[in-house]
Amino acid sequence: MEIGKAEQQELMAVAHQLADVARIETLKYFRQPVLDVSNKELESFDPVTEADRASERAMRDILAKHRPDDGILGEEFGTQAGTSGLTWVLDPIDGTRAYISGTASWGVLIGLDAGDGPVFGIVDQPFTGERFIGGFGVSEWLRGDEKRTMQTRECAALADAILYTTFPEVGTKAEGAAFRAVSKQCKLTRYGLDCYAYALIGLGMVDLVIESGLLAYDVQGPIAVVEAAGGIVTNWQGGPAHNGGQIIAAGDARVHAAAMEILNNVV
Amino acid sequence: MEIGKAEQQELMAVAHQLADVARIETLKYFRQPVLDVSNKELESFDPVTEADRASERAMRDILAKHRPDDGILGEEFGTQAGTSGLTWVLDPIDGTRAYISGTASWGVLIGLDAGDGPVFGIVDQPFTGERFIGGFGVSEWLRGDEKRTMQTRECAALADAILYTTFPEVGTKAEGAAFRAVSKQCKLTRYGLDCYAYALIGLGMVDLVIESGLLAYDVQGPIAVVEAAGGIVTNWQGGPAHNGGQIIAAGDARVHAAAMEILNNVV
Repeated sequence: MEIGKAEQQELMAVAHQLADVARIETLKYFRQPVLDVSNKELESFDPVTEADRASERAMRDILAKHRPDDGILGEEFGTQAGTSGLTWVLDPIDGTRAYISGTASWGVLIGLDAGDGPVFGIVDQPFTGERFIGGFGVSEWLRGDEKRTMQTRECAALADAILYTTFPEVGTKAEGAAFRAVSKQCKLTRYGLDCYAYALIGLGMVDLVIESGLLAYDVQGPIAVVEAAGGIVTNWQGGPAHNGGQIIAAGDARVHAAAMEILNNVV
Repeated sequence: MEIGKAEQQELMAVAHQLADVARIETLKYFRQPVLDVSNKELESFDPVTEADRASERAMRDILAKHRPDDGILGEEFGTQAGTSGLTWVLDPIDGTRAYISGTASWGVLIGLDAGDGPVFGIVDQPFTGERFIGGFGVSEWLRGDEKRTMQTRECAALADAILYTTFPEVGTKAEGAAFRAVSKQCKLTRYGLDCYAYALIGLGMVDLVIESGLLAYDVQGPIAVVEAAGGIVTNWQGGPAHNGGQIIAAGDARVHAAAMEILNNVV
């Protein structure tokens, strides 16, 4: 579908509003002191669930007001059909294990799907105050008053690549074995960053992210950011990645191809 | 050795000065765009080595001026003997792999060893602007104008514990196997944080950090921060950890004992 310049501007403004409210809601519960578990009423209170829901609810309120005809696919409250052909794909907290540990690598993910994948997306890290945006001709890193154009870096071969994934197991036994076959050829392999690793591809600091078992809301924001910065994201067979599953994200098509050659026999 | 209140104040002020200059030097090279490798003069330029050296050099300059009688043990420029009985133990960038990847989990580590381990220490994360300090009766997290008292949280059993380590391999085969035996009993195991994981024990967000193959400058700052916040750090046999080696850091002595019971047969 064709989206005119004026509508692109409006959609970008709405996306920033979504990230702004999600930032407020997620930070409310981040690193809060342990609750008094002897208080029965508080026993079932789960800060990350609260933050996840409050964050998605706040984003849905904004969409109801400004984009009532768009669809929504959210991690917490499911699918809401739209009529505009556009769907907002929301993960209010990607990396809940990072969030409960107090690290600065979880994120709020916003993707705008025009039918066959994201045309715009945001990865926001509320604690560091970083916002990574991509699409509609924009590829930017923002933090307070700072602004920087994002651009992936060149990386011709696995031997030069910094590779990230979230869990060392990666997925099934076969998926883990295939991952390790790639990892063995890479310069450096690191773990535990969730969505932040995709953002670092956009910044030109990381070359490859390989994961499996992802869902649409885990990847649409990151795909938009990586692609706008000059990178490439597909599944392990080279097909579209926006519905999730097995993901290869790379800053350079050559290292993407090299990784895929090893991974693409694993179904 | 006995250190009077006035000298404690002076030592803390110097430690903050060290962290301040290290923050400036390490951020100069952090996330800098890829250099033009066709320029022969730049080909051998390694940003992390430059930052590491510049950061330690700046800290040594301050010590030469304000604490000329103290010893120094630094990662980059080795040992300098002192006469005061105090030694500054410096790691200008702990987590160089995190640093070159652009993450926010590396740190500047400063420990003040009075002969048998740190009496004061700092873990500083320059990009997030966080400073974790511990010792001389102080246990604080600082960020800009924000300040918070640090306190480890209760954790009675491995089944309730969040465990961190840097590399999934941990160390030798036997060390890795012992780690996995602990990990299997924990609620959650995560990877890749370097020194930042110790700081999160201090904040009461993480319960256990288990590592091996560390050096004195990797642990003295973190030990001071964890202990001041109410935690415990030993080697895998329960002995002193300030010279490095195999490390168990915990927020609660009970979960420390439970982990040690599994780990202490591995030499």
